[in-house]
Amino acid sequence: MQTFSTPDAPLSDEQFGARVQAAIDGKTKPLGALGGIETLAAQIAHIQRSLEPRADSCSLTIFAADHGMATAGVSAFPQDVTRQMVLNFLSGGAAANVFARSVGASVRVVDAGVAGELMDHPDLIQRRISGSTANAIAQPAMTPSERDAALSSGSALGHEGDETVACFGEMGIGNTSSASLVAAKILSIPVGNLTGRGTGLDDEGLRHKQNLLEQAAGRTGARLDAPTALLEYGGFEIVMMVGAMIGAAASGKIVIVDGFIATVAALAATSITPVCRGHMVFAHRSAEAGHARVLEALEATPLLQLDMRLGEGTGALLAFPLVKAAAAMLREMASFESAGVSGPA
Amino acid sequence: MQTFSTPDAPLSDEQFGARVQAAIDGKTKPLGALGGIETLAAQIAHIQRSLEPRADSCSLTIFAADHGMATAGVSAFPQDVTRQMVLNFLSGGAAANVFARSVGASVRVVDAGVAGELMDHPDLIQRRISGSTANAIAQPAMTPSERDAALSSGSALGHEGDETVACFGEMGIGNTSSASLVAAKILSIPVGNLTGRGTGLDDEGLRHKQNLLEQAAGRTGARLDAPTALLEYGGFEIVMMVGAMIGAAASGKIVIVDGFIATVAALAATSITPVCRGHMVFAHRSAEAGHARVLEALEATPLLQLDMRLGEGTGALLAFPLVKAAAAMLREMASFESAGVSGPA
Repeated sequence: MQTFSTPDAPLSDEQFGARVQAAIDGKTKPLGALGGIETLAAQIAHIQRSLEPRADSCSLTIFAADHGMATAGVSAFPQDVTRQMVLNFLSGGAAANVFARSVGASVRVVDAGVAGELMDHPDLIQRRISGSTANAIAQPAMTPSERDAALSSGSALGHEGDETVACFGEMGIGNTSSASLVAAKILSIPVGNLTGRGTGLDDEGLRHKQNLLEQAAGRTGARLDAPTALLEYGGFEIVMMVGAMIGAAASGKIVIVDGFIATVAALAATSITPVCRGHMVFAHRSAEAGHARVLEALEATPLLQLDMRLGEGTGALLAFPLVKAAAAMLREMASFESAGVSGPA
Repeated sequence: MQTFSTPDAPLSDEQFGARVQAAIDGKTKPLGALGGIETLAAQIAHIQRSLEPRADSCSLTIFAADHGMATAGVSAFPQDVTRQMVLNFLSGGAAANVFARSVGASVRVVDAGVAGELMDHPDLIQRRISGSTANAIAQPAMTPSERDAALSSGSALGHEGDETVACFGEMGIGNTSSASLVAAKILSIPVGNLTGRGTGLDDEGLRHKQNLLEQAAGRTGARLDAPTALLEYGGFEIVMMVGAMIGAAASGKIVIVDGFIATVAALAATSITPVCRGHMVFAHRSAEAGHARVLEALEATPLLQLDMRLGEGTGALLAFPLVKAAAAMLREMASFESAGVSGPA
């Protein structure tokens, strides 16, 4: 079977898929008994075009940026929190850091456009497009050249690193609003269907946010292509993540997609580069209102349902051990034949 | 806060619970944004009576035994497979071994009553009660002294080891039938409500199994207490797991409960020693028919829903990284105060 695990094996996808399924079915377990882990193992085998895939190493890249919209009151938290959380990431105290240490992933933090003075920290990756997007309620969030610079920086970061698994996280006060608008325009559905409480708005805060987002959505047509939706409503961290997903997929990595905002980035990435979709593993179904709708559009079944809604890549990190175990199952588990175990009577 | 993290802190459970919730709410994240991970962290804090809990180390103990019922055709697999799988566990090739290596857990294999000659392997823990249970369709599966010996051996094994987290797995051809009968009698519900395809019966096999289990259930009253249900219908691996769960909880460990059979063992363990329940984390909702019903009786919300139905402790092992991360969250994550991050506006 070893001969089929080289990347240049001359098998069609269908032939290779049959080999993968036969390998999984030959493992010492009842047919299908590992459920979702088997599906995941098959996907990883296809990504790596190998019957002995690996998903042992993992990096998290967190993109941070600020949103012009945030000053209009779309979030429960003040805009300063974006910068404060970047410092928290850099000192290792955020949930994403804790989970990364717990599952054995490395963390990179990228300034994609955090408001205020440039931060001077040796571990911060500086890719700032500008100090904040424009207020997308009233005007396009960024210029075409800003968008293209963010996509390009993201793609380069996505290619970097030897890790087999790439997780992407985001931090940006106001970015659930930005993501809701981007997804609503790509999917051509009312933004109200995708608007939730974000990081914790109360009823009045939610109504205010809904009004603002409807106003923002009214500026443009019902459906926009992904590059235009990103330009009109995106954040620099979101656009950079789109580029990073495209770059990571192009470099053969498994991409674990985090929560609502990352799933919207995944929607844009697959819209721009459809072949990305095969590289994506969806971590979890978050508590954010629009997430299920965007997952459905991607025909994605997430691995976890833990009512998380933090972002930062925290859900992706918690899904990594499942991805690692699925690859190990296919690579290491004995077959009925190799272990001398009898099959069903 | 350190002063409240000692095991002998003179706080009521309620006072301690308030401390735990305040610590979780003070972390740099929106209130409740880590969903199920927060619930899990609070449970672990209570188990260890600490605001800085640890769940870094994990052992899996797999109990194997044979069932008199298996010869009557309740399983898709021949009885020999129990022994063959024990050898597979010992050589590291089973799914449980692969997942244990992947998540960093140790593995112990216990012969609780595997049919055939005594196995002579340096790594096999020999606690054999006898070569098989009796055929529970026609007579009690074991004697009171066999049951008590299995409970006692299990309890001692549950106490062993320094790991903070204990997973228990099982292997025994026919043991979904045994577990269905035990649960039906403890819960006083028809065994048909808890009968599924086990490791892969077809429609005819399932009907045959249902008839046999109804016949077995008809031997005794509708409701049995847990010790009697175990004696009438249990397997040595199931009874030993019940003892191990009680022992592990008594020694302060976090117990991760695997799939259907382990959940039935958990039901019996909490029925015998109710305080066990607080130590139990439920790994996953399996594809086995009766599992949801038994989880409901235990008021348990499992962490994963991956349609797995293998047993061996495989689901428990995949849940371990979530348990580890939840403890790390409470222990390591910065607070708004310590990180200088602003709260909601």
